[in-house]
Amino acid sequence: MGIQGAAPDVKAPVSILQSLSLRYDGSLSLLDQRLLPEEERWIDASAPEACVAAIQGLAVRGAPLIGVSAALCLAANAERGASRAALISAAAMLRAARPTAVNLMGAVDRVLAAIHRADDAGLAQAVITEATALFTEDVALCAAMAAHGAALLQDGEGVLTHCNTGGLATAGVGTALGVIRLAHEQGKRLHVFVDETRPLLQGGRLTTWELRRLGVPYTLISDSMAALILRDGRAQRVLVGADRIARNGDFANKVGTYGLAVLARHHGVPFYCVAPTTTVDPACPDGAAIPIELRSPEELRGARGQRWAPADAPAENPAFDVTPASLVTAWVLETGVVWEGTGVVRLR
Amino acid sequence: MGIQGAAPDVKAPVSILQSLSLRYDGSLSLLDQRLLPEEERWIDASAPEACVAAIQGLAVRGAPLIGVSAALCLAANAERGASRAALISAAAMLRAARPTAVNLMGAVDRVLAAIHRADDAGLAQAVITEATALFTEDVALCAAMAAHGAALLQDGEGVLTHCNTGGLATAGVGTALGVIRLAHEQGKRLHVFVDETRPLLQGGRLTTWELRRLGVPYTLISDSMAALILRDGRAQRVLVGADRIARNGDFANKVGTYGLAVLARHHGVPFYCVAPTTTVDPACPDGAAIPIELRSPEELRGARGQRWAPADAPAENPAFDVTPASLVTAWVLETGVVWEGTGVVRLR
Repeated sequence: MGIQGAAPDVKAPVSILQSLSLRYDGSLSLLDQRLLPEEERWIDASAPEACVAAIQGLAVRGAPLIGVSAALCLAANAERGASRAALISAAAMLRAARPTAVNLMGAVDRVLAAIHRADDAGLAQAVITEATALFTEDVALCAAMAAHGAALLQDGEGVLTHCNTGGLATAGVGTALGVIRLAHEQGKRLHVFVDETRPLLQGGRLTTWELRRLGVPYTLISDSMAALILRDGRAQRVLVGADRIARNGDFANKVGTYGLAVLARHHGVPFYCVAPTTTVDPACPDGAAIPIELRSPEELRGARGQRWAPADAPAENPAFDVTPASLVTAWVLETGVVWEGTGVVRLR
Repeated sequence: MGIQGAAPDVKAPVSILQSLSLRYDGSLSLLDQRLLPEEERWIDASAPEACVAAIQGLAVRGAPLIGVSAALCLAANAERGASRAALISAAAMLRAARPTAVNLMGAVDRVLAAIHRADDAGLAQAVITEATALFTEDVALCAAMAAHGAALLQDGEGVLTHCNTGGLATAGVGTALGVIRLAHEQGKRLHVFVDETRPLLQGGRLTTWELRRLGVPYTLISDSMAALILRDGRAQRVLVGADRIARNGDFANKVGTYGLAVLARHHGVPFYCVAPTTTVDPACPDGAAIPIELRSPEELRGARGQRWAPADAPAENPAFDVTPASLVTAWVLETGVVWEGTGVVRLR
């Protein structure tokens, strides 16, 4: 789908940005991740309302990627000549689309700062420049995390991961999955155990799809099988991403991460949080201060439009949980690997 | 559906046995649990092949209930005048239908012993008598477990459970869920946290359905949310059933149970295994000797006929896992509560 109407009157050359699931060419297109792996349908998310809907409905997801998407949505509107007031209003709407991933707030705030700094003549270009920088920086952050993390993985190891943290969650190769990808490309023979990640099945649908494309050997498991994999010594590492990291190292990530961290500790398996420092929230002292998004109970009563629980089944559906720093072996950031052990973690 | 054809020529009065999901009136009818909660369809499982298919396809499930069902299938065939050889052959087929729940082997073996003891004239009656006894005994076992277990639960507590262990898993009120039911009927205000239990969703489909009928307050959660419920102190007990208990107290139960036991231990929450002594296998020294059924990977690629993972996604799908005795607070049997702590558990 393309935007209909007059061509944008902005004179700056439009840079084309393309990732696995995002394309920006003056308009913002997103791969609708809800339809994967069966169907690869792109949707136009140039209008702020469309981008908010895509973020809230999880057509686009992944803490870094929703930040980049929101920024590029503002760029698309700037290209179309949106006024300063319209951009500020759109930014406020995008910033509030989901509450947990701080990358969204961080990315929008950077574009907002550019909006406030720019004069009228330079407004559009300032927004486009800042949003483009967020995209290219995220690519670089992923590459740096991957390099630091891949060095931790040994040939022949099994790696357990949760949710999706790859090219569908970032503008680059990913966080936890980017580490795995790079280690694989370095020739290390890895086997990935993929939690399906109920209720929205980002592992079963998206991580499987990515690993299949990359040719990385994997096994899909139910979330409740993870304990068995760890008990049987089949995974030597657990790698997950993060949606927000507090100053003390506590972090929010897809629900199920906390239980995995407990299970990893019980079995003596190292547990790594892989995320860029854009995911660290300096304003957040600890995990208790991270707001956790509660999603519709309906997501738990079935999957993908099919319901199997009673229609009125009471259900609780937090999208994230918080893992305390004490259960983390190390944080893999683009700046390097921070090891737990001192009891005082300084991530940013 | 009824059996077509000539009326059975056995003269003994047919006793009618009815549980929540099984009816025996000379024919064996089973509620097809695959269709719950949307549809309550009964299927005729009188023919051994039909009963084996129902057991393997999980139209009927639950360790005690598949044992009773297999026995009553043999009774239905005895009523129809099946020969000793035919009954022995059917028994062998039923006994091998699923590998993990020892109740199935135990129940079929009791009917087989009756077949071998009886003379030709008394054969049919002997089979019917033994199978009927297995049904009525299971009802009594459930009632006794419920009485012992309900005494452990306090007014106002939260209880976390996994899979389905109620009237859909036994001929009586159930094992773990029977305990909860009785405590509720005693006036204790409980709140049940129901793991959905991927991949076949016995919690999300069946336990919710039972609790709703019983009027017991509950909340459906994803399997990976259980750690949160325990961390937040919202469940004071974890109650699960068992498919086979080894002599040392190790036990096999629905996959996910082992992880729950680790999580309960980490959070200091008591963890109970509720099962009749018919689930104890004296021939089994420890958990490593329990055969674990591996089911089709396809069950993990989706649910109820809908697939969401890549069609060729490699997946592992053990139906059960083994929880070591060291993680069990107590076993609630029909004979009483056996507490861990001595390091030597004698369950039978």
